[in-house]
Amino acid sequence: MTTHDLVAQIHKKNSFLCIGLDTDLEKIPAHLLELSDPIFEFNKAIIDATHELCVAFKPNIAFYEAYGIKGWEALEKTIGYLNREYPEIFTIADAKRGDIGNTSTRYAKAFFEDLDFDSITVAPYMGRDSVEPFLEFKNKHTILLALTSNAGAFDFQTKLVGNQELYKEVIATAKTYKNSENLMYVVGATKATYLSEIRSIVPDSFLLVPGVGAQGGSLEEVCFHGLTKNVGLLINSSRGIIYASSGKDFAEQAAIKAQELQRAMADVLQQMSE
Amino acid sequence: MTTHDLVAQIHKKNSFLCIGLDTDLEKIPAHLLELSDPIFEFNKAIIDATHELCVAFKPNIAFYEAYGIKGWEALEKTIGYLNREYPEIFTIADAKRGDIGNTSTRYAKAFFEDLDFDSITVAPYMGRDSVEPFLEFKNKHTILLALTSNAGAFDFQTKLVGNQELYKEVIATAKTYKNSENLMYVVGATKATYLSEIRSIVPDSFLLVPGVGAQGGSLEEVCFHGLTKNVGLLINSSRGIIYASSGKDFAEQAAIKAQELQRAMADVLQQMSE
Repeated sequence: MTTHDLVAQIHKKNSFLCIGLDTDLEKIPAHLLELSDPIFEFNKAIIDATHELCVAFKPNIAFYEAYGIKGWEALEKTIGYLNREYPEIFTIADAKRGDIGNTSTRYAKAFFEDLDFDSITVAPYMGRDSVEPFLEFKNKHTILLALTSNAGAFDFQTKLVGNQELYKEVIATAKTYKNSENLMYVVGATKATYLSEIRSIVPDSFLLVPGVGAQGGSLEEVCFHGLTKNVGLLINSSRGIIYASSGKDFAEQAAIKAQELQRAMADVLQQMSE
Repeated sequence: MTTHDLVAQIHKKNSFLCIGLDTDLEKIPAHLLELSDPIFEFNKAIIDATHELCVAFKPNIAFYEAYGIKGWEALEKTIGYLNREYPEIFTIADAKRGDIGNTSTRYAKAFFEDLDFDSITVAPYMGRDSVEPFLEFKNKHTILLALTSNAGAFDFQTKLVGNQELYKEVIATAKTYKNSENLMYVVGATKATYLSEIRSIVPDSFLLVPGVGAQGGSLEEVCFHGLTKNVGLLINSSRGIIYASSGKDFAEQAAIKAQELQRAMADVLQQMSE
């Protein structure tokens, strides 16, 4: 999917919501466990109930790998279902991969070609030749970890490298990579004020913002500091939406939670256009 | 496996060689492609031919993920075969994972419990709460990326954070993590002189050293700068061993290459004991 198409979807749906599919057999409604593929059935129900309220779905790959071959099958079915039924959805493999060149190429092919995700999250620690193999794929997007929403982000990401924090050094350096127009960045909502500083380095890039909701970030603050004229934000919510209810009404309740966020986003977009 | 048992194996076999199973359908001998699981058959033949010459095998997870469910099945069969037939071997899942706490716990369970690897490689960028979930597992080892062997290592890892390079900051910080005795570190052989400086921070920890052979590092230099009284090194070679021949003699030729390295290591260990 092109960035242009993503922006068009945002305006069409009045939403820049991404729903994280962190699907956990210990948290999904018990009645699903009797089915042959409870992970996929859960995802399908959530997707069907919420796809008009969001522009992106983000399966967290760890949750699928944790179940071995069965998990991998559920992941393949989920991305296949999304691509077939809702091709207008932007899909994110939240994999946080990153390895030496020939290995990154393997990961890129697995997620971009075989599974046909639109994007993947990638860790920056190994530098240019671990990231550029992902950037070669046309109309595919590489979402680089910059400033994450967890407490450990302060161990290294906010340390000063020369006269700027490591996360800014990561963004500024990544801008020099070949095909850097295919980059987006992960920036946690728990540090919304950092977004202004990031916008001084990448005024137009899309940012994927986790940490709204369960992790305590504020939608209003994130928008205040991070919005661009092309919106430039994807706000992720996972547990706050998909586990809104553990009963048979789980998909309906998920849609209600997604709609709350979508309406708040519609207000923001309305204000932007005035 | 305990570190004590690993050291005992090193002395028993006179080897601290790790063989990387970067198994690629485009590189393995053509006659194997007719079999129902060529990846596993290749691995099994390499393992059977070389297990007495090395102390560790390291499947690079990207190469398995690249083949989807079939790749995951080959990985499960490979680690199952290693654990059943050669329980004295130290197994490394080269996965370079790292995510927020609850997700890292998922990865730790997948690799340490379900697949029963002895160790996993982990990326440090997300800090303490992305690493500590791996460290909770008794007699399991977390091998943190410190200084990698690729060109991109100079993008961030060698940048000064305060008065020391980021890779040293990573090691010094990781030492303060809970259960840090379960940490090992990845340090590329292409920068052997850096090993002395690393030894001033972690005098006793095991280091996993890729980059000997195909990537140009020298075994002698690595040993000169990195050896400890408990050896403290695992030297990895992947392509230089497993792709020594693309003919029907591939396993035999792999054993010859592995033996060259093992003999050089035996000399080093002999000199140490004198």
